[in-house]
Amino acid sequence: MFVLVNLKAYPCDPVEVAEAAAEVAKDTGVRIAVAPQAAHLDRVAATGVETWAQHVSPVDHGSHTGSTLAEAAAEAGAVGTLLNHSENRLKLADIDASVRAAVRAGLETVVCANNPRQIAAAAALEPDAVAVEPPELIGTGTPVSQADPDIVTDSVDAAASVGDVPVLCGAGISTGEDLEAAGDLGAEGVLLASGVAKADDPKAALEDLVSPLV
Amino acid sequence: MFVLVNLKAYPCDPVEVAEAAAEVAKDTGVRIAVAPQAAHLDRVAATGVETWAQHVSPVDHGSHTGSTLAEAAAEAGAVGTLLNHSENRLKLADIDASVRAAVRAGLETVVCANNPRQIAAAAALEPDAVAVEPPELIGTGTPVSQADPDIVTDSVDAAASVGDVPVLCGAGISTGEDLEAAGDLGAEGVLLASGVAKADDPKAALEDLVSPLV
Amino acid sequence: MFVLVNLKAYPCDPVEVAEAAAEVAKDTGVRIAVAPQAAHLDRVAATGVETWAQHVSPVDHGSHTGSTLAEAAAEAGAVGTLLNHSENRLKLADIDASVRAAVRAGLETVVCANNPRQIAAAAALEPDAVAVEPPELIGTGTPVSQADPDIVTDSVDAAASVGDVPVLCGAGISTGEDLEAAGDLGAEGVLLASGVAKADDPKAALEDLVSPLV
Amino acid sequence: MFVLVNLKAYPCDPVEVAEAAAEVAKDTGVRIAVAPQAAHLDRVAATGVETWAQHVSPVDHGSHTGSTLAEAAAEAGAVGTLLNHSENRLKLADIDASVRAAVRAGLETVVCANNPRQIAAAAALEPDAVAVEPPELIGTGTPVSQADPDIVTDSVDAAASVGDVPVLCGAGISTGEDLEAAGDLGAEGVLLASGVAKADDPKAALEDLVSPLV
Repeated sequence: MFVLVNLKAYPCDPVEVAEAAAEVAKDTGVRIAVAPQAAHLDRVAATGVETWAQHVSPVDHGSHTGSTLAEAAAEAGAVGTLLNHSENRLKLADIDASVRAAVRAGLETVVCANNPRQIAAAAALEPDAVAVEPPELIGTGTPVSQADPDIVTDSVDAAASVGDVPVLCGAGISTGEDLEAAGDLGAEGVLLASGVAKADDPKAALEDLVSPLV
Repeated sequence: MFVLVNLKAYPCDPVEVAEAAAEVAKDTGVRIAVAPQAAHLDRVAATGVETWAQHVSPVDHGSHTGSTLAEAAAEAGAVGTLLNHSENRLKLADIDASVRAAVRAGLETVVCANNPRQIAAAAALEPDAVAVEPPELIGTGTPVSQADPDIVTDSVDAAASVGDVPVLCGAGISTGEDLEAAGDLGAEGVLLASGVAKADDPKAALEDLVSPLV
Repeated sequence: MFVLVNLKAYPCDPVEVAEAAAEVAKDTGVRIAVAPQAAHLDRVAATGVETWAQHVSPVDHGSHTGSTLAEAAAEAGAVGTLLNHSENRLKLADIDASVRAAVRAGLETVVCANNPRQIAAAAALEPDAVAVEPPELIGTGTPVSQADPDIVTDSVDAAASVGDVPVLCGAGISTGEDLEAAGDLGAEGVLLASGVAKADDPKAALEDLVSPLV
Repeated sequence: MFVLVNLKAYPCDPVEVAEAAAEVAKDTGVRIAVAPQAAHLDRVAATGVETWAQHVSPVDHGSHTGSTLAEAAAEAGAVGTLLNHSENRLKLADIDASVRAAVRAGLETVVCANNPRQIAAAAALEPDAVAVEPPELIGTGTPVSQADPDIVTDSVDAAASVGDVPVLCGAGISTGEDLEAAGDLGAEGVLLASGVAKADDPKAALEDLVSPLV
């Protein structure tokens, strides 16, 4: 299972979460990555944790003021990027172009989507993985694996039908139990945010999260 | 073959084109539809021609000022809608929601896309058809079937692999020869605009276009 | 006072509201306009009521699929247009271009904005009027003139400082009392929606609304 | 005169340009800032040059995946931010919210706009400065001060009429002569990009640029 921690624009200390994630990853052998603000990529990568961007723009080098160039994210230490998060929905053509930009810069890609139909569409764009996150569950603390297990299994089926693309499961994930349930439904990883980023003790939160894998 | 004439925001007389299309459709038995501005749907539908919207918004009834509600388009006479035209690219989640809105209002749907990967993604959203239009060929007069035949056949394969979704072929189509070439490549229809809407004699242009089908 | 009734994408009968508005306008001499969906402009204008678009696109004739061309709105009977409603916020450059497009097509313009700063900005683009609508009050039934009278007077001052642009007052307006309060604060009109469009008896709602003016 | 060098998504070495700018600023006493990709803010700021963001999002801390949080830009070393560059046009309400976010994080703001009308609108949002950049001149090498001097003087007048907001002049600026002409037209600074970022010798380019000020 892959654990991807999205720091969004939370008022957390990105380095503290990154150090916790690096340590737990090392101690347990579980793959854990942290996705900070673009401006924090450098310092998060410096902790040694696997570092992801939250987004890269559908552009190549050139006149694109205010973009997040995939190469710039990679130079700052990112090895992967989220795309089309429900808080940052993209045009279909731009998801395609952003996946291409990420591939060009050597970044792994996870394309988010809301339901099995959109998961199939996202998978057709050939990212490394897709993530299903029903928007209505994000940040609720109610895991999708419990609130709507069918959406996970249907997404796994949808992604498999298009091209054997692994599915991460997001929205409401915070505990080891949630992670285990997601795995039981066929997810190969989890995407989470507040459960770790807003935890009083991010390290303890991550340890609990990955405990079923150890 | 289905012929869908997109009037865009051209300075043509939408009723003149609609009447020409209605007549040619009647004379030849070929299915021809006309997609005018939303504000022109009523008068175009009044000609008896099959009338399509150029877009419907991803919304239901409610507080959506400036939207194009699918039901309003249907009430004005539309029986189908284009979505995600390259001049009006939509977010993935919104294409999905717009297809659902169109289905809810009884409108047929054609989702446009730029390349075979995006065609597969569009087809996964379960529209009635998809249309492949490489943006660089739109309005050039060089038909995609000639400039890049592989993109058409690859799109037909991509749509078929996802769920047997018919493919229309757009960009640069204007003559009967273009239409025939599109059909030979597996397209079940053509999407065109300036070739008819900007023609001195739209009726003659349509007659030439459908001549291989008669 | 100018009364502008925005039908949004409400499930009301636009013709019924338009007829009510036409009648009340005629009976009372108050200027009342109705802004329906673009696809309903024709039938609303046919009632004889002053008809407005909810939006026009920042484009001229040309390749703009899915746009709302100002000329098409005018041909369908619109004599004015809302722009930048809080449900349809536009880029600054596009508000400017949409005002220009409306002027080109002979449409009057009302640019909406959220607060006095944005009202000044909107007024600088030289529309015929601006409308202040705090988004948090829209659809609440609590009139802005009561919830936050300062925002109205500050908007009137802001618009005056830029160029003597009249201010309409929106958000939560539904009764004659609300309209009167808006006028007392310096507004030269009101923008309302659900108070009329969702009323059991739109005509009675309008009669109550304009009663202080009669 | 303030010289703001926008690195866009150019394939230049941001640190090389930053070091050149820092040196020329120190040698000449001219205020020179560099605006790199968000992911490069840290390393550019480390050179000691005045560092600006190319954009900050109209958000506060919270659930905003893929945003550029003003605080994150500030933590990475930015002391100012461009907003609404013609390659990154924003909604009016978002320019307002982005200026507020920048102020909150202690960042100086320059809001770009295309013409005197939009300059007045931008100035009404109370940024620290505005920048006029006719989009058709960006990257051409033809300075706006030469191609269209009236747009600069009209912008200076427009900004002054709204609230004494300084105007920077962008588009096509690359030489000391261009900078001088901009100053003569009333600009208090220049915004430039390719003239420095794509120069074979950025330091020499900057030295030439600021030579009239030394």
